[in-house]
Amino acid sequence: MSIQTALTKRLGIRHPVLLAPMDVVADASLASAVSGAGGLGILGGGYGDAAWLEREIARIKETQVRFGIGFITWSLAKQPRLLDLALESGPAAVMLSFGDPAPFAEPIKRSGAALICQVQTIDMAREAASVGADILVAQGTEAGGHGATRSTLTLVPELIDAIGPDVPVVAAGGIADGRGLAAALMLGASGVLMGTRFYATKEAAIAAEAKARVQRATGDETARGVVFDIARKRVWPAPFTGRCLRNDFLERWTGRELELVRRAEQEHAGYLAAREAGNFDIAAVIAGEAVGLVRDIPSAREVVVRVSQEAEALLKGATQRLSE
Amino acid sequence: MSIQTALTKRLGIRHPVLLAPMDVVADASLASAVSGAGGLGILGGGYGDAAWLEREIARIKETQVRFGIGFITWSLAKQPRLLDLALESGPAAVMLSFGDPAPFAEPIKRSGAALICQVQTIDMAREAASVGADILVAQGTEAGGHGATRSTLTLVPELIDAIGPDVPVVAAGGIADGRGLAAALMLGASGVLMGTRFYATKEAAIAAEAKARVQRATGDETARGVVFDIARKRVWPAPFTGRCLRNDFLERWTGRELELVRRAEQEHAGYLAAREAGNFDIAAVIAGEAVGLVRDIPSAREVVVRVSQEAEALLKGATQRLSE
Repeated sequence: MSIQTALTKRLGIRHPVLLAPMDVVADASLASAVSGAGGLGILGGGYGDAAWLEREIARIKETQVRFGIGFITWSLAKQPRLLDLALESGPAAVMLSFGDPAPFAEPIKRSGAALICQVQTIDMAREAASVGADILVAQGTEAGGHGATRSTLTLVPELIDAIGPDVPVVAAGGIADGRGLAAALMLGASGVLMGTRFYATKEAAIAAEAKARVQRATGDETARGVVFDIARKRVWPAPFTGRCLRNDFLERWTGRELELVRRAEQEHAGYLAAREAGNFDIAAVIAGEAVGLVRDIPSAREVVVRVSQEAEALLKGATQRLSE
Repeated sequence: MSIQTALTKRLGIRHPVLLAPMDVVADASLASAVSGAGGLGILGGGYGDAAWLEREIARIKETQVRFGIGFITWSLAKQPRLLDLALESGPAAVMLSFGDPAPFAEPIKRSGAALICQVQTIDMAREAASVGADILVAQGTEAGGHGATRSTLTLVPELIDAIGPDVPVVAAGGIADGRGLAAALMLGASGVLMGTRFYATKEAAIAAEAKARVQRATGDETARGVVFDIARKRVWPAPFTGRCLRNDFLERWTGRELELVRRAEQEHAGYLAAREAGNFDIAAVIAGEAVGLVRDIPSAREVVVRVSQEAEALLKGATQRLSE
């Protein structure tokens, strides 16, 4: 049994489950595991490290699975040649998030890859649709890492009403289990994209202590803001902010962001050193509100199978709630 | 056909749809319409105006429907005798939001009314369960009016995991149609509580221009903050903030809240006058992200019927998404 949607048809995948292209974390190991289990793994091209991208593309091609490649759009605009590198590898999809997709839409579509645009507002959705997005990812504020303020629960159906039925919509942010997938389908989405759930898997390229913190945290223990971006000197354009687990560093600087900007030179080195040392009282564990639904560190395959089967069971049992 | 859940059984209602006890807006006209359609209307006892409460209780009792009464808990604590007034009227439920329910739990439960506690975090849910809440409302940040930071999509399932299956959980915040109700049921909720959707109904006791603004707005046009609370001199205890439509007044003062606090004396009178005059470029239209799903101003009965039927159809069709 599997859940068939416009998304699974468009991408030729078995389960409507996509891996969020988490910068560096979503490497060939994680992405190929997700694709191998019947979802679609999307490499986290992130800020654009050409050497990393070349290596991970080579590695995932060896596994012969379908895969996608994701970029931070405003960062890709600074080194557009990375798109050529990506398209030469024959990805099933290229995902653009956070910025104007217009300059890249045409070459992506011409290559035969599906153009996936992640959006955070209705206006962004209209722009993405107008440049020919094949799939829209509606990302709610629940999501870990960068995002904006709208919540998944309202953004998904409002976006579908605004764009119409021709473009499959994927729900992102706040989803970590089959309940979330089944809920997303009821909202009209054709599937889900998950970051935090896959961050806490065996394959994810991140420190064990970071995964352990995700496993322990409740959803009340995350916050969205700009403190960590200031500390690592990667401040994003508005309206984007980042969601991470709260930690000592965040508590210390929240509400004092301008002071941190003024002290960034002093704080930056210490922040990088803490990240290097795996000190997550200072360094950020990038995670969304769905951490409260993450209670183990299974394989990525197990996540895809479990989420799909749980959603299938919920859909199958849905009519039992109805009585005459 | 109707959707049967632990909530409908516990409250003896036909549809798992509750009216949010919006301060003053949820009066006897609106609440009785919701109850008459098979949901549960909950009077908006709000900050505690005894004359209003007596009058609306008398009016709703004339209609002979089941009804609930809602209070802002920290405000009720200042005039606890209002609870006696409420309990004497024989409500089906008393709903407490925003504060410690412990002092009021015992008299409510002894009266035979169901104790409904609205919570915004996992810790609050545990506290409410420990004092004997019969029903928990998990309110996400999408909600209009006062609330906190967690999103409905993650709060509902995490809360259910934390509290267990014995207490029915109602999803609140971001729900305005049958897609939202069906999604909430997939998350494990037993029903929904809606404010914004009922705010834009014929019966709601609010200016026509406020309803029209809700009807026009997209979900991108709301914001959560404390500007309006400062202006009307009703600043709430942390962690609560209010979500309203953005307007000129909000744009003017967002980011300058401390200055507004210092000028509150001057600004207060002008704010009240604007509210009186129905000038919603200054006065707040209290609404949640679900505004983007509200495109008409029907009767409250029509809302209950439409939301229920749409959800029923989604549940009935759920298995069509499955293939071998």
